[in-house]
Amino acid sequence: MSSGSNTPVAGKTARIVISVDAMGGDKGPAAVVAGISDSIRRLPDLDIILHGDESVLRPLLGSEPALAARVALRHSAGVVTMEDKPAQVMRHGQDTSMWAAINSVRDGEAAAAVSCGNTGALMAVSMLRLRKLPGINRPAIACLWPSRNPGGFNVMLDVGADVKADPSDLLQYAVMGAAYAANGLSIPRPRVGLLNVGTEDHKGRAGLKEANEILAAQATTGGFTHVGFIEGGDIPGSSVDVIVTDGFTGNVALKTGEGTAKLVTDRLREAFTTGVVAKFAALLAMRSLKRFQHRIDPRRANGGVFLGLKGTVVKSHGGSDATGIAAAIGLAHRLAVTGLTDRIAARLASIEAAGQDSRSGAPGEDAGTGSVSSV
Amino acid sequence: MSSGSNTPVAGKTARIVISVDAMGGDKGPAAVVAGISDSIRRLPDLDIILHGDESVLRPLLGSEPALAARVALRHSAGVVTMEDKPAQVMRHGQDTSMWAAINSVRDGEAAAAVSCGNTGALMAVSMLRLRKLPGINRPAIACLWPSRNPGGFNVMLDVGADVKADPSDLLQYAVMGAAYAANGLSIPRPRVGLLNVGTEDHKGRAGLKEANEILAAQATTGGFTHVGFIEGGDIPGSSVDVIVTDGFTGNVALKTGEGTAKLVTDRLREAFTTGVVAKFAALLAMRSLKRFQHRIDPRRANGGVFLGLKGTVVKSHGGSDATGIAAAIGLAHRLAVTGLTDRIAARLASIEAAGQDSRSGAPGEDAGTGSVSSV
Repeated sequence: MSSGSNTPVAGKTARIVISVDAMGGDKGPAAVVAGISDSIRRLPDLDIILHGDESVLRPLLGSEPALAARVALRHSAGVVTMEDKPAQVMRHGQDTSMWAAINSVRDGEAAAAVSCGNTGALMAVSMLRLRKLPGINRPAIACLWPSRNPGGFNVMLDVGADVKADPSDLLQYAVMGAAYAANGLSIPRPRVGLLNVGTEDHKGRAGLKEANEILAAQATTGGFTHVGFIEGGDIPGSSVDVIVTDGFTGNVALKTGEGTAKLVTDRLREAFTTGVVAKFAALLAMRSLKRFQHRIDPRRANGGVFLGLKGTVVKSHGGSDATGIAAAIGLAHRLAVTGLTDRIAARLASIEAAGQDSRSGAPGEDAGTGSVSSV
Repeated sequence: MSSGSNTPVAGKTARIVISVDAMGGDKGPAAVVAGISDSIRRLPDLDIILHGDESVLRPLLGSEPALAARVALRHSAGVVTMEDKPAQVMRHGQDTSMWAAINSVRDGEAAAAVSCGNTGALMAVSMLRLRKLPGINRPAIACLWPSRNPGGFNVMLDVGADVKADPSDLLQYAVMGAAYAANGLSIPRPRVGLLNVGTEDHKGRAGLKEANEILAAQATTGGFTHVGFIEGGDIPGSSVDVIVTDGFTGNVALKTGEGTAKLVTDRLREAFTTGVVAKFAALLAMRSLKRFQHRIDPRRANGGVFLGLKGTVVKSHGGSDATGIAAAIGLAHRLAVTGLTDRIAARLASIEAAGQDSRSGAPGEDAGTGSVSSV
């Protein structure tokens, strides 16, 4: 992976360059530029390559002089919409800002890319342009989940790159998720659990028992501690750092958790806006409520990371506002600085060398064949 | 199903008799008796047959004279523990309170059974003693989920009877879940959604597309409105009343939702116990906070119902306290009064008659063969 030595602004060294797709999010380019503005203030070594419609972006950038020195604008005429099919975008999306944002990583001028566009299309373009790391069968999308662990977050994958996962895929998810937790959350030796419907050995679907044995055998080589089967209630808990599952189950769990947290906080808001005493109490408890909201704010955990590709891509939520986009850029920056892709590649090579029985395949052999089934 | 015309107490008519397993819950028989005591005060037509160790139960009942007239005590020497394997209990569990509680339904002396014991064993004994309804392939466990709908709850199934489900099983879940929502939540024509990772037709696992088409074709005969694919975020929403999925996905979603709701409310509690002002505000907002807690109290939704058997069985949470057990008894009472089993049997017969291509099988053919894989 590029270490970010290339920069759009001359005369600076050891800069981290992140490529950002300005288009395709629900809140439009203004939210993206506001998020960039936040990020640049917080991260002095950050530079941005911004891809999108110049006639829209130039005025947004123009109003903030501080941005001009740190953001290189690149014009793209096309935009990938939420309705576009991944296969269409792979064939005809060359002029889009999403394509150009990924190309900046491929060409080594950016260390990572961020987009809040269509997830399926972003995964398809990323696989086509960046290609899979050697030995990887199915790339995965990893998310951060608010948890009871000291760092405040757990990692879960796959949350939607592919609806299926074989035992050997689940081992690769464990290795990649552990590398992500090590670099993204500073956990030296992450604890990995395999999601199931019970913790006893005989429980669950065909294939999970085999996967559990493979993970136990490869944990040391893979750079993680294997804790065995875990249940849905452990996802926000403190017994594991990384939750491994197939993309169908992971996607359902992620959306169920988000929906449930939203229901609970909405009910809380209703409780505090009914009646004069409650409203006064809410005013008094404003600081506590704000601290509470901050701790469970889903925007802080914004950013699904695509793992298993030759380059880092962060998918920001489609409805991200400036806070969410700044979180996604901050995550991309951190993963670039810590060399996530290199770490994953090295761990996967160790697993291969340890004689793991995997379907290796030529690097990136499936890219461009329409095998992408991002959800 | 028995309409509850038999009663343990002579001289009363039109009574509803519920059979309760007093043993096997984490909080012991005292919590069960306290829950019964609550239920009997609220439901004047309710009588109880209580199964368990007489030497333990007699003193608990003795301290409440009001109970003596409405509770018939039946001694069982054995107890099913949380560690017992379902297959063991099926072979050697004849002397247990769980077995006896199910037998009361089988023999027609109770209209429904309630237990907070081992789920796998309870499903195994229920299948063995009650047998499956004609045409049913896999019985299911249905749960209530706090939601934005006017009634405050949605129904989800299967949440753990079987890790697998074919398209024809998912149709049976839709029919059974709709009958449960009609009788348990008074929704005349429930809206049924099929859980997936996206709402577009091409999304998801093999089999889900076929299931979606079968549900659409059979909705009228099955007594429900089919809304197509839904996502995890819709489970606590207002767009459906019944969520249909396989027992693996449903179990993970249920436990993820419970764990997430618990994390959010714990964080809220922390926010209100840090600092003097926050504590004072919490005191002031006590009523609002209590209303909030009540609305999201998981004990109110206590009771996984086994569907697809010749009789109603309600599985109360293993850790249920008196409030939770009273909720489970209240649910069993309501389902008995409204004739849930008869309604399900009638709907399934209509589906069969409509020429649905299902693997019918002889009624109950698999019971007792160890095919139970409750999670």
